[in-house]
Amino acid sequence: MKALVYAGPGKKELREMEKPTIINDGDAVVKLLKTTICGTDLHILGGDVPAVKEGTVLGHEGIGIVESVGSGVKNFKVGDKVIISCVTACGTCDNCKKALYAHCADGGWILGHLINGTQSEYVHIPHADNSLYHIPQGISDDAAVMISDILPTGLEIGVLNGQVKPGDTVVIVGAGPIGMSVLLTAQFYSPAQIIMVDLDDNRLEESKRFGATHTINSRDAEATIKEIFELTNGRGVDVAIEAVGFPATFDICQKILAPGGHLANVGVHGKSVDLQLQDLWIRNVTITTGLVSTSSTPMLLKTLASGKIKVEELVTHNFKFENMLEAYETFQNASKEKALKVIIDFE
Amino acid sequence: MKALVYAGPGKKELREMEKPTIINDGDAVVKLLKTTICGTDLHILGGDVPAVKEGTVLGHEGIGIVESVGSGVKNFKVGDKVIISCVTACGTCDNCKKALYAHCADGGWILGHLINGTQSEYVHIPHADNSLYHIPQGISDDAAVMISDILPTGLEIGVLNGQVKPGDTVVIVGAGPIGMSVLLTAQFYSPAQIIMVDLDDNRLEESKRFGATHTINSRDAEATIKEIFELTNGRGVDVAIEAVGFPATFDICQKILAPGGHLANVGVHGKSVDLQLQDLWIRNVTITTGLVSTSSTPMLLKTLASGKIKVEELVTHNFKFENMLEAYETFQNASKEKALKVIIDFE
Amino acid sequence: MKALVYAGPGKKELREMEKPTIINDGDAVVKLLKTTICGTDLHILGGDVPAVKEGTVLGHEGIGIVESVGSGVKNFKVGDKVIISCVTACGTCDNCKKALYAHCADGGWILGHLINGTQSEYVHIPHADNSLYHIPQGISDDAAVMISDILPTGLEIGVLNGQVKPGDTVVIVGAGPIGMSVLLTAQFYSPAQIIMVDLDDNRLEESKRFGATHTINSRDAEATIKEIFELTNGRGVDVAIEAVGFPATFDICQKILAPGGHLANVGVHGKSVDLQLQDLWIRNVTITTGLVSTSSTPMLLKTLASGKIKVEELVTHNFKFENMLEAYETFQNASKEKALKVIIDFE
Amino acid sequence: MKALVYAGPGKKELREMEKPTIINDGDAVVKLLKTTICGTDLHILGGDVPAVKEGTVLGHEGIGIVESVGSGVKNFKVGDKVIISCVTACGTCDNCKKALYAHCADGGWILGHLINGTQSEYVHIPHADNSLYHIPQGISDDAAVMISDILPTGLEIGVLNGQVKPGDTVVIVGAGPIGMSVLLTAQFYSPAQIIMVDLDDNRLEESKRFGATHTINSRDAEATIKEIFELTNGRGVDVAIEAVGFPATFDICQKILAPGGHLANVGVHGKSVDLQLQDLWIRNVTITTGLVSTSSTPMLLKTLASGKIKVEELVTHNFKFENMLEAYETFQNASKEKALKVIIDFE
Repeated sequence: MKALVYAGPGKKELREMEKPTIINDGDAVVKLLKTTICGTDLHILGGDVPAVKEGTVLGHEGIGIVESVGSGVKNFKVGDKVIISCVTACGTCDNCKKALYAHCADGGWILGHLINGTQSEYVHIPHADNSLYHIPQGISDDAAVMISDILPTGLEIGVLNGQVKPGDTVVIVGAGPIGMSVLLTAQFYSPAQIIMVDLDDNRLEESKRFGATHTINSRDAEATIKEIFELTNGRGVDVAIEAVGFPATFDICQKILAPGGHLANVGVHGKSVDLQLQDLWIRNVTITTGLVSTSSTPMLLKTLASGKIKVEELVTHNFKFENMLEAYETFQNASKEKALKVIIDFE
Repeated sequence: MKALVYAGPGKKELREMEKPTIINDGDAVVKLLKTTICGTDLHILGGDVPAVKEGTVLGHEGIGIVESVGSGVKNFKVGDKVIISCVTACGTCDNCKKALYAHCADGGWILGHLINGTQSEYVHIPHADNSLYHIPQGISDDAAVMISDILPTGLEIGVLNGQVKPGDTVVIVGAGPIGMSVLLTAQFYSPAQIIMVDLDDNRLEESKRFGATHTINSRDAEATIKEIFELTNGRGVDVAIEAVGFPATFDICQKILAPGGHLANVGVHGKSVDLQLQDLWIRNVTITTGLVSTSSTPMLLKTLASGKIKVEELVTHNFKFENMLEAYETFQNASKEKALKVIIDFE
Repeated sequence: MKALVYAGPGKKELREMEKPTIINDGDAVVKLLKTTICGTDLHILGGDVPAVKEGTVLGHEGIGIVESVGSGVKNFKVGDKVIISCVTACGTCDNCKKALYAHCADGGWILGHLINGTQSEYVHIPHADNSLYHIPQGISDDAAVMISDILPTGLEIGVLNGQVKPGDTVVIVGAGPIGMSVLLTAQFYSPAQIIMVDLDDNRLEESKRFGATHTINSRDAEATIKEIFELTNGRGVDVAIEAVGFPATFDICQKILAPGGHLANVGVHGKSVDLQLQDLWIRNVTITTGLVSTSSTPMLLKTLASGKIKVEELVTHNFKFENMLEAYETFQNASKEKALKVIIDFE
Repeated sequence: MKALVYAGPGKKELREMEKPTIINDGDAVVKLLKTTICGTDLHILGGDVPAVKEGTVLGHEGIGIVESVGSGVKNFKVGDKVIISCVTACGTCDNCKKALYAHCADGGWILGHLINGTQSEYVHIPHADNSLYHIPQGISDDAAVMISDILPTGLEIGVLNGQVKPGDTVVIVGAGPIGMSVLLTAQFYSPAQIIMVDLDDNRLEESKRFGATHTINSRDAEATIKEIFELTNGRGVDVAIEAVGFPATFDICQKILAPGGHLANVGVHGKSVDLQLQDLWIRNVTITTGLVSTSSTPMLLKTLASGKIKVEELVTHNFKFENMLEAYETFQNASKEKALKVIIDFE
């Protein structure tokens, strides 16, 4: 089979590899139908994630057809069409019992990280019963790919951690694919205002289509903060969601919170940030972080099947798997290419 | 009447002043029976709280007898014995309707800050119906003084924000009066381990009497962190509560959290801290801050009346109001004097 | 002034009365712009609510202009346009401090019940600061009237008590004004399926316009239950909301719950019901009841101002106050008249 | 091996049987050290649980040593000392993912019900990884047996469903083993008053040792209700917990609730009850039911290991397994024998 492999910092190759096989009773092997590329894949290629060994197949998102299952797999059989969750869950460790699958003792985010991933014709999935999901009627294939990672990440780490409530004012800093996923899933809870903040005017414009009520270009951080206070009559916002991963974007978020406000950090950070505790200690704020657990997947399947949100529009480009390198090229130049998510088809 | 007045940075005086009177319908005037000194009073005297004007009477804690009430006061009458809450609540603004009294539009922490406080023979209390509390049978006068500020602060900003649950491992950094209040009220929720961390061996020893299961002297921060991981089999803690207010103590807290853990900041911070988001973004942690709202006062009255916790032991020294300056002297040398809370009697 | 008065069982009269005046500092007098009729008013007229004395002005909903205020009122001034909440809250009793305004020690539902109500040119409102609300831009007058009672009742006692979540299957039994309010406000939380159940085909048809995904005429209760299980693949529903008030409608609700399901009773019941504990004890269900507290009013004001739901469509008929008796006639024959809410204008 | 078998209504026998073996990868076989008898076992013997087939081994509680494990079991190995949970959980079905193990699609309460149980020298445990628990240091064997069923039932279905909070007034109707378990675990949350209600004066006396603050003999139901209102200054209780299973005991509970109160039903009911909705609809109450999920077991292990509650005192009698029938005799005459839980030893 063919697979896209991390070949050391800055290098990736489409290689011929052995097809994976069942190792443990709970495993499945899935033949991919579609996959996609995540910002994290770019981080790995940049050499920022040293845990990833050379020769590892990249990718932690996708849908496919079950090719084979171990004898212990109960929920899936050969031929089932499934979503591959970006997080693998054993279902029996202490953290899994708390639905904190992100920190599963024998799983978590391992696909395309500690074990071979989904940018490949076939993928080996441990603990299949808790790591795959059937695709209900009413969800398109492209939408289903968004359920592997990006939608549950936006929902769990942005919206649920941020405790978005009906009538709230929500700021989302970052209008990339993750920020847009926050934007889409925030609407499950009917906030009154969703203010999108980014440096890219095109993405801001796009965000209106996804439900933003206001947009602000943050090239001037102080003016951005001032405008947000004006939009809230000087009160500040109920929820600020950081979906970029830089000190500067975090800083905007910590400065716009109303008393009692929530700051949900979704961005992946490479360095520390300066937390203004001298101002915040008295403001009754809550700051959260996290890797997605995909515990919200059953809820997402039901809401998407009922047509609550139109996620297909997150997909801006389609490629054949043979053109995988071109797909990367496009995704790496997302701003220029006006790309959000790129879908790679295996057929 | 006599009152202790802030006379500019570093200066305080016992002065003769006019007795306060009712201004608005909802006001009360209370004749003090007992008051106490808070770490915040020392901050004010240090000149760190510029909002406090020279000539302001200090103090935001105490109990007394209602001397007079405005025509709109429903819950209290002349002669009632009451606890004075450190937070004044109008009961009708947006934040009060959310029980976020700390940020009341016409109140919050104003006593001994923006208006004259309780280190005085009489004090004027706005919005008396929501800012005073009857003292139920079974609560001693000394215990009642602890309900003005220190116990609700430990409970709301430490224990409730930190979401202490039965069976949890809790670390409290800081064994001063606030840390001890966290320690006492944490036990309402039956954590399995409470690890007390401080630089003062005497206070650590004291903390065992208040219910600490382990103590660690944090003179070596790295060794402290290591020991905490050992006590939790390498897992980290469920809840870390910062009750000091320095970057170094916050730093210990942010480094000992288990995945899914909570960091509740109670300390008053004078500068920013370096938040290690490069490590924390993936650890699903929650960080909270806040000024007390005293919304837990009704619950504290019931638990203390039923004898759940012995708070009198927080009181280490007693003074007459005429010796107020001496009381400050003792409290300012808390470590040497082995002082936690000092009670000042007006009779 | 003119007012509609309860004149004993079965009797109502439009009478000339004294204009109300300020009694306590916290009072307001409001000149009505619009009011409406509630099912409860019909119950009172039927003689079912003996607490209502002859001569009491009926009505607990409406909007108007503040005519005068007591000296203690802070949030409102003469000339303000306001929503009158059906529940009066003192803001200082034990239940008010828990936001359980329905059981305020000096309020609760008293308008048109224990004191004169809103079907009158002027109304006296005690505790005005916690019982009136400003009308934000973006909410029409007719929509505002729905915020007095019907929308917060549907939301708090139906949707919030029932814990409606994204992706849920919700059944609402009763497609009258309250059931429709549940239907509208349930959509704040994005359930996947909302199944409306009623005996009136016209109302069922209407409910589709308000967002119902399925409708069932319940003339055959067993068939109704069977159909609901079919719609949920035999699993039962997440939330069943009773919005009628009869044993038969409650019975449908208790028989369709999935394990872990919620039954939120909104209906006003005149007799006991047979609770099938022999079946339910093992099914992990939650049953709730309640009178609205209108604690959700601030949230409703924000969601309605942002256009989340179209509540004007609940208004099917408009009358002048001079034709008040005709308005009652129409509302009492709601099914025949295809009436939901009737609005009475005072101008 | 020897096992106690249900031999049709009213009949039980100690029989010689085949030792169980591993069937599926996830199974374990456990050699029993201790078991006990539950009220449910008496119900089965009474013929009230027709799902139990003749020849089924009774019992769903106990501790033992792992004798053998399937190839898929990860958390346990031969020789481990374990608690057997009364509820079996597959860990992968929809309800298990919500921690609603009571309604596991391939488990739930099946031991001694749908499959052979623990009153036997060996028992076959499906889904061992989610149905067995290691016994931490600090928990005695007798205490560990209480974790199979009785303590998580009291905690989850009584205390957690009832939302017991610090300072609350809690009534527990029924001072048998389950009521006592509610009483013990309620104290994790520091209620101010716990009023125990029963017909047996001896049990009421015992309950004081377990932490009851008041006791009432309910031979006169009206007087009981009156006394409870007196104890709460006419307000009613925050939480009423039904731990018997009769209409009369449920009726006491529904009549003593304060506005906003919780009624947690723990008792197993054989018939319906008359729910006084004509009174309760307006009182904002919450009624819950349920079978235990044992999702609280990890928390119980930590709290018991830290010595929070003394559960050994629930054990009043000890028998050898060879005297199993005598143990039943004692338990069936609990009142006369002053029995709470009887422990049966296999060694």
